[in-house]
Amino acid sequence: MVMRREVTLADVAERTGVSVGTVSKVLNGRGQIAEGTRQRVAAAAAELGLNARIKAPASHPGRSYLIGVLSTDEYGRFTIPILTGAEDTFGPGEMSMLLAESRGDAIREQHYITTFLNQRVDGIVVTGRSSDPRGSISDLLRVPAVYALSPSNDTRDVSVVPDDEGGAVRAIDHLIGTGRRSIAVIAGARRHTAAAHRVDAARRAIVAAGATLSGGDALYGEWSERWGYEAATRLLGTGVDGVFCASDQIARGVIDCFRDNGVGVPSEVGVVGVDNWRVITDAARPSITSVDLNLREVGRKAADLLTRMIQGESLSGGIRTVDCFLVPRQST
Amino acid sequence: MVMRREVTLADVAERTGVSVGTVSKVLNGRGQIAEGTRQRVAAAAAELGLNARIKAPASHPGRSYLIGVLSTDEYGRFTIPILTGAEDTFGPGEMSMLLAESRGDAIREQHYITTFLNQRVDGIVVTGRSSDPRGSISDLLRVPAVYALSPSNDTRDVSVVPDDEGGAVRAIDHLIGTGRRSIAVIAGARRHTAAAHRVDAARRAIVAAGATLSGGDALYGEWSERWGYEAATRLLGTGVDGVFCASDQIARGVIDCFRDNGVGVPSEVGVVGVDNWRVITDAARPSITSVDLNLREVGRKAADLLTRMIQGESLSGGIRTVDCFLVPRQST
Repeated sequence: MVMRREVTLADVAERTGVSVGTVSKVLNGRGQIAEGTRQRVAAAAAELGLNARIKAPASHPGRSYLIGVLSTDEYGRFTIPILTGAEDTFGPGEMSMLLAESRGDAIREQHYITTFLNQRVDGIVVTGRSSDPRGSISDLLRVPAVYALSPSNDTRDVSVVPDDEGGAVRAIDHLIGTGRRSIAVIAGARRHTAAAHRVDAARRAIVAAGATLSGGDALYGEWSERWGYEAATRLLGTGVDGVFCASDQIARGVIDCFRDNGVGVPSEVGVVGVDNWRVITDAARPSITSVDLNLREVGRKAADLLTRMIQGESLSGGIRTVDCFLVPRQST
Repeated sequence: MVMRREVTLADVAERTGVSVGTVSKVLNGRGQIAEGTRQRVAAAAAELGLNARIKAPASHPGRSYLIGVLSTDEYGRFTIPILTGAEDTFGPGEMSMLLAESRGDAIREQHYITTFLNQRVDGIVVTGRSSDPRGSISDLLRVPAVYALSPSNDTRDVSVVPDDEGGAVRAIDHLIGTGRRSIAVIAGARRHTAAAHRVDAARRAIVAAGATLSGGDALYGEWSERWGYEAATRLLGTGVDGVFCASDQIARGVIDCFRDNGVGVPSEVGVVGVDNWRVITDAARPSITSVDLNLREVGRKAADLLTRMIQGESLSGGIRTVDCFLVPRQST
């Protein structure tokens, strides 16, 4: 019978050629690790049998290690990266997330809050499908809550949102930097906070750069390819050489319209979208330069703040922002 | 001071003009209710103050009322409707779902299973991003598990999947019914169960109808618009009058290629996709007729079977299917 010595993180590090710190991060699901590295480390740990030795966290009296996640997003596209980011922070085998989608229904939301409290959650992450502010639930709770993406309208609450305005500025700076001087802005519905923030910031950045906002105002419509296509028809022949679209779907409609009408993208007009939704950006011809809202980082930060509150730290209320970043592709 | 009598379901029913049964279904999140009706009932119940009277369920000793949902889907598009369906069955305020995404990583999966068991879940739903069979976790558990979408490869387990083959037959029958006789089939990667099932069933249905499978075999590639476009270029000039695409993304690429090459859809060729993913189907020009995999019903059924197992019912192992349905749009 072969004696086997204890497998350590160092063994996995040696096998995969990364640092012990990286192995630890992968096994705890923490930090930003390249996908390829993560998979190699995980595979090596499994091969070496390290998985059997990873311990459950020590339990603390009064802690359930349950986090309630209350979402109003039926659709999932915005919620999922936030959940993934929260999991990055909470870590597998440490905190668990109870999921509830209220489907925008106050009665269901009340039910779920009650259920979370009955399950003795340590805290609650509240999230939604848009950056429109939402009502606070904190007065109903005996536990801390953090609002992610959809901020609380109560400034005593702790909220984390993408820096939508900074994202729009990055988009405009990129268009200016690639030589565009007459820039149109196409947004979804004007009532949405995301539209207002992106348009206001884009307008200021265009003025600051000494460029022109085509038509003097943004075009508002809906968050769809159809609207992007229609709005773009109004830009034909106006001399526009840059278009900032407040979503990738709008940008794809714009690009399709320009192609159908013989307008070259990016040779004549540069187009930037928002969301970095690869289903859309990568399928468009040409592919779409886009602002990534960094929603996974929003989830990570919200989970981090909630963890600190659960551990007794007192945080100041208000909205914290996470930087967006630009992903350049063929459309500019 | 005004005396208020107890608000009943009948009051809500009267206010909204629906039956008491419908009100009950809405408030319990059960059954299939039109979205408009659901919202009216919920709003009326909230206005009348009924929400405060909805009780938490009676607790049973030994039950945690927690269900673990173990997903391997990072992406969310397939998981979300399954979660929503499971919530329909479990009901708000009754069972709660603990969410864990293993990201296809065996170590994370093992961690999450341990965490679920530490949290004393009553049962586990296992789901994934494809209909490829996956390994069983049932031997690791002291509680029942049901596999949704991604079936267990152990026939003793209870699995629920969409009837992919039936869906493909519906697509072909629809093409035949709209007069198509020479039908091409374009799929994603051949190694995927979904591709194999859809292609095999489509081929049989084409033969059964006395029509022709264009080129004698399906075209296999990837699950993308790009591949759909490329595959469609090979069909130009072949006399094909119908195309069954194994995903909506493929179908959109096909439609774009035909439009770019002056082939009329649906006047010359009818095109059907799979997934009924409205982001894709509705943005395409023309909009895409598609097979809906009914994933929400897969989630509902999985949750229902799991509930019965938790209550002590002994179910036979094997794969149960849920019917798919066809949503006709302009492309046919």
